[in-house]
Amino acid sequence: MADFELDPRLARDTWHLGHVAGCQLLLMNDARYPWLILVPEIAGVTELYELSRDTFTQVTQAIADISKSLQSMTGASKMNIAALGNQVPMLHIHIIARNSDDDAWPGPVWGHGDPVPYSDDARQTLLAALQETLLSD
Amino acid sequence: MADFELDPRLARDTWHLGHVAGCQLLLMNDARYPWLILVPEIAGVTELYELSRDTFTQVTQAIADISKSLQSMTGASKMNIAALGNQVPMLHIHIIARNSDDDAWPGPVWGHGDPVPYSDDARQTLLAALQETLLSD
Repeated sequence: MADFELDPRLARDTWHLGHVAGCQLLLMNDARYPWLILVPEIAGVTELYELSRDTFTQVTQAIADISKSLQSMTGASKMNIAALGNQVPMLHIHIIARNSDDDAWPGPVWGHGDPVPYSDDARQTLLAALQETLLSD
Repeated sequence: MADFELDPRLARDTWHLGHVAGCQLLLMNDARYPWLILVPEIAGVTELYELSRDTFTQVTQAIADISKSLQSMTGASKMNIAALGNQVPMLHIHIIARNSDDDAWPGPVWGHGDPVPYSDDARQTLLAALQETLLSD
């Protein structure tokens, strides 16, 4: 199997947070929503069901753990979890903290307006807080 | 804990297919996409991470099994899996077979245009095929 290499569009649109459960954990560069993306580091996989049983268990448990922590950290009204991949087929799972006063509420975030990039300061502060909360054990 | 009762909006927008893994399996009444919804029959749950460990494992495995079968049955380009719940908080997981020539491609289906209800004949044929493929064991 080919070596894993992060899809260039995901690389362009995100900041790297760290690794968890055999996945890259990324922060979407869109200050409108706390929006994480989990990418299993396995080349050629596009569907959740293609993961081996053990990897599937690891990845889905990581989705649950991260979404719980991110909701607790942000006080979000609702978590949005999704594996879509219509535009970037490489398997990646969105974990998005939604609030009832956010830009797209109650609609989905995808395709809604244009991303608002983080300022350098805001990004560095958020990345540090997310690493402390999500990746500290 | 209160008895489980399907959210009235989910009940209104779907047809009941059957039961699997402690969930109701529903067919969205929108002929534009083969679109299933899995609803764990547990009152008061809105987030995936709130499921007990065993139920979480059962439900996520059902998501994988159903999405694999539905993609195989429909020849879909991509499966879309999502737990959103901004409008209907009751935990429900969308399993949608997407095609590169479908109405919303490559965008998400939510909020895209108006549903196209199935004709009675089309619905009955599809429900029978889905029950045979997804629920026959």
